[in-house]
Amino acid sequence: MANHDIEENNGRSVVSGRRDFRDKKPPAPLIGAEELKKWSFYRALIAEFFGAVVFLYVTVMTMVNYYQLADPVKRGDPSPAIGILGIAWTFGVAMFLVVYSTTNISGGHVNPAVTFGFLLARKVPLVRAVMYGVAQCLGALSGAALAKLVVGAYEYNEYGGGANLVADGYSNGVGLVAEIIGTFVLVYVVFSSIDPKRNAIDSHVPVLAPVPVGFAVLVIHLATIPITGAGINPARSLAATIVLRHKAAWRVQWIFWVGPLAGAAIAAFFHQVILRGASVKGLGSFRSQSVL
Amino acid sequence: MANHDIEENNGRSVVSGRRDFRDKKPPAPLIGAEELKKWSFYRALIAEFFGAVVFLYVTVMTMVNYYQLADPVKRGDPSPAIGILGIAWTFGVAMFLVVYSTTNISGGHVNPAVTFGFLLARKVPLVRAVMYGVAQCLGALSGAALAKLVVGAYEYNEYGGGANLVADGYSNGVGLVAEIIGTFVLVYVVFSSIDPKRNAIDSHVPVLAPVPVGFAVLVIHLATIPITGAGINPARSLAATIVLRHKAAWRVQWIFWVGPLAGAAIAAFFHQVILRGASVKGLGSFRSQSVL
Amino acid sequence: MANHDIEENNGRSVVSGRRDFRDKKPPAPLIGAEELKKWSFYRALIAEFFGAVVFLYVTVMTMVNYYQLADPVKRGDPSPAIGILGIAWTFGVAMFLVVYSTTNISGGHVNPAVTFGFLLARKVPLVRAVMYGVAQCLGALSGAALAKLVVGAYEYNEYGGGANLVADGYSNGVGLVAEIIGTFVLVYVVFSSIDPKRNAIDSHVPVLAPVPVGFAVLVIHLATIPITGAGINPARSLAATIVLRHKAAWRVQWIFWVGPLAGAAIAAFFHQVILRGASVKGLGSFRSQSVL
Amino acid sequence: MANHDIEENNGRSVVSGRRDFRDKKPPAPLIGAEELKKWSFYRALIAEFFGAVVFLYVTVMTMVNYYQLADPVKRGDPSPAIGILGIAWTFGVAMFLVVYSTTNISGGHVNPAVTFGFLLARKVPLVRAVMYGVAQCLGALSGAALAKLVVGAYEYNEYGGGANLVADGYSNGVGLVAEIIGTFVLVYVVFSSIDPKRNAIDSHVPVLAPVPVGFAVLVIHLATIPITGAGINPARSLAATIVLRHKAAWRVQWIFWVGPLAGAAIAAFFHQVILRGASVKGLGSFRSQSVL
Repeated sequence: MANHDIEENNGRSVVSGRRDFRDKKPPAPLIGAEELKKWSFYRALIAEFFGAVVFLYVTVMTMVNYYQLADPVKRGDPSPAIGILGIAWTFGVAMFLVVYSTTNISGGHVNPAVTFGFLLARKVPLVRAVMYGVAQCLGALSGAALAKLVVGAYEYNEYGGGANLVADGYSNGVGLVAEIIGTFVLVYVVFSSIDPKRNAIDSHVPVLAPVPVGFAVLVIHLATIPITGAGINPARSLAATIVLRHKAAWRVQWIFWVGPLAGAAIAAFFHQVILRGASVKGLGSFRSQSVL
Repeated sequence: MANHDIEENNGRSVVSGRRDFRDKKPPAPLIGAEELKKWSFYRALIAEFFGAVVFLYVTVMTMVNYYQLADPVKRGDPSPAIGILGIAWTFGVAMFLVVYSTTNISGGHVNPAVTFGFLLARKVPLVRAVMYGVAQCLGALSGAALAKLVVGAYEYNEYGGGANLVADGYSNGVGLVAEIIGTFVLVYVVFSSIDPKRNAIDSHVPVLAPVPVGFAVLVIHLATIPITGAGINPARSLAATIVLRHKAAWRVQWIFWVGPLAGAAIAAFFHQVILRGASVKGLGSFRSQSVL
Repeated sequence: MANHDIEENNGRSVVSGRRDFRDKKPPAPLIGAEELKKWSFYRALIAEFFGAVVFLYVTVMTMVNYYQLADPVKRGDPSPAIGILGIAWTFGVAMFLVVYSTTNISGGHVNPAVTFGFLLARKVPLVRAVMYGVAQCLGALSGAALAKLVVGAYEYNEYGGGANLVADGYSNGVGLVAEIIGTFVLVYVVFSSIDPKRNAIDSHVPVLAPVPVGFAVLVIHLATIPITGAGINPARSLAATIVLRHKAAWRVQWIFWVGPLAGAAIAAFFHQVILRGASVKGLGSFRSQSVL
Repeated sequence: MANHDIEENNGRSVVSGRRDFRDKKPPAPLIGAEELKKWSFYRALIAEFFGAVVFLYVTVMTMVNYYQLADPVKRGDPSPAIGILGIAWTFGVAMFLVVYSTTNISGGHVNPAVTFGFLLARKVPLVRAVMYGVAQCLGALSGAALAKLVVGAYEYNEYGGGANLVADGYSNGVGLVAEIIGTFVLVYVVFSSIDPKRNAIDSHVPVLAPVPVGFAVLVIHLATIPITGAGINPARSLAATIVLRHKAAWRVQWIFWVGPLAGAAIAAFFHQVILRGASVKGLGSFRSQSVL
């Protein structure tokens, strides 16, 4: 806060004994196929897979339980139900947990939109990004299926199974805009949380990294659940739709891929090119830099 | 806690390898027009602008959604609605996020009252303070307009659009007092979170800086929503009023400028002159110190 | 976690460059009258006073607002009301904020029971403890009076003014036990948060200090509000009762002094004598140690 | 986040002055009977005992209060009741507090399933694990009994006393699966929070250790309360059942031991063998390593 001359300190480390980042980390390789030979690469895929399992299991269970408890026909008394606030907390805290648990193994994406943003920003190579996306989707699918197994197929289908839809009264275009903005906010916060261009005064940044990511998911859900149910994570939207086998959800599935990927792209561009002041160099690295 | 002799340690750094603040940072220049030539200055304005966009978009969306869901005519069953607790969380967490994301670029104000407090405390020069205020108001306006675009003009107007009013049964004078006190608490916490006069025992202070700011916004909203809707941020109040075009909101708009700016001034005075023990020196720097 | 051999590391610092505590801090002087000459002492009193003002203002405002909104005669629809969960959050977060803001000035007590625990543990001298108690009570009184001024005397009195009572169906003895246990938990957590006998593996301890204190207040309120309204802070209970001028609250006021002070004493004894393993030495310092 | 080459840094410490873990900590002794002679061992048992007392007292009080307030016969108006969201927060924050307070004394388990996971991972020896389990169960029993004393035996029994049951409409098999998955998530997060194989970029890990453990408890409760009430802690389930003397709870008690212990075993295996890449060495240490 209030560091009006912070810029002047960026190039050097004020507190030499505490530097826990590298200012000049080179961009990731563009393709990165050589990673396929490393065990650490497959361990990262396992981490992304299990992160997605936990994220989907916890959130889908909570949503199905909520709609069941809030059903006035079945219960009459909705007082124990957690409401939209409780659902938003579940998504935010679950994302905090899986980012926290996987960050030192895979980088803690657990979201194809985040991976896409990192790919565009040259922070992960193409092969890793694609494999992460596959692992995330398979993990999300497994987590949703596990939730269906536990709550029962009837309850799962009856209470929506956590699938994303555009709510009555909103057009698909509005849903798309809401998804773009929501994912922009999320990926922008993710980029802020890993920005190495921070000096010692901002030492709270890496310390708190998974916390703002979880909190971003929380507020985006509070703002977006009544519009689209808040996707902002294509793996989550796809998995819930596949396990639910719901036609209406399939018809709008494209919104939950185009919106998040577009939002992530805008955030990556915004953060890398505008905020990082890397306009010329940054554009160059997008276009012409060869594999390291 | 319980460091009854903390004062004696202030002048020196107990843990030499960890000092992440400068005890004797000079006051900011009074005018600071020379900053207009730096790219970092405009980047800071962009950060304040986008911070305000995100803050208004998220909070206005959530408020309009809430009042729509809680509308007994339209829904009958208010159980999913998040209530005042959910709105307070939205404001608190959204402010945490934008402070977190902008703190290393602009200092993380995203509130003209905070900027005004920093100006009085000689932590930002005049030109920067004025330009921040403009960027914050334009960003807030854009965020509220974006929310109106997404939820639709009819719903936006019908459900209040997040504008601040003095609630029935309270006088304008009471509203003003509530805004002064609320902003005093906020700016006092902001000053505490950046106080360099803390020694190594209090190493949690910079680490957690955006957290107490967000939490301050949370509790002020819990305490003040039923009185004024809780402004404590003139950019937010102005933007919501302009986008709503609501006559009653315009008539009390002055409360949401005079109150927050007065509260911030009291907090700056309280923190700098009384708590920092800088009575003589501090008063001097307010009055007669020339531009550095 | 899982440091089964942690004990062996207590005597030495594993990471020499990061030691941010003193293992062998001497006990505070017993009387400490010489502090009366220091400006830092009065600044600490101001901090405790204003911390209590903020704590009472925020929490009393929230409670009066809640009961007003939940009043079925007045509103009919309690959906916006925050419920016990919202009140508990208000108390927890408000205590976090005032501890955070005052910890480097006064040690961040803002509660006579905490100060009493520190006195017994020889962490503050007698003069300071008594003066803190006076400042806390006067601050709490001012905060409650300010809340009454803002919400209006009628609403304040009609909706309970935040005063502590023993709920219908519970005896005074049960209320006393609930206050003892609640304050024991709070003061035990406070002692844990400042325990210097922690090595580098536990580096999170000082970093997070105000967070667990706030969280302890939160869960004690969730557990105790339906019994006594949760006092666990004599300054808060006294101030609310004085400003409300409520006879029934006066008759049980003793519970909110005896309970918290007894709970704090048990926690101090438990932490200092049993957990710190200072049985012999500890008892000695309670009884016979002369002023340093 | 996004550290695609993190693996390469694991073997060495990037920031030499801040290393707060030991990469090559040897496994705990298998039996560990020699600890019985140390005072620190008994102090750890006291810490686990009192941690369980606090955890059960706070959570059982909150649950009994909740069901009493939500009882439509007794109150008519459930608006103040905290709902499942409030209960989940109580469990999560209470677990955070007891882990935070005991972590430097006993390692902060306060859950036989966590202790069992640590035993399998060779992080605590057998004697300590068994004695921890006994202390945790006795502490939980005392905490539940204390809650019964405070709320009254009638209310305690009438409102369920916090005992775990399999909800109507779910089979015992489903309840068992829900407990296995819930405890897997918890113990997996616990292992992540103490993983020494993290480099300086992940310096937030030990700093935040008790936070993710509390948050894991929170989301597991949100997902599992409507199925089994969420045990994931055999000491808590046993104590509530003993104090309630409820036949139906006794009949399903096995679920709340088999489920959590199985979930913890899977998490220990998953973390130690798969994620840590210690397949060969790890399996060896399970089978044949002699006492150190």
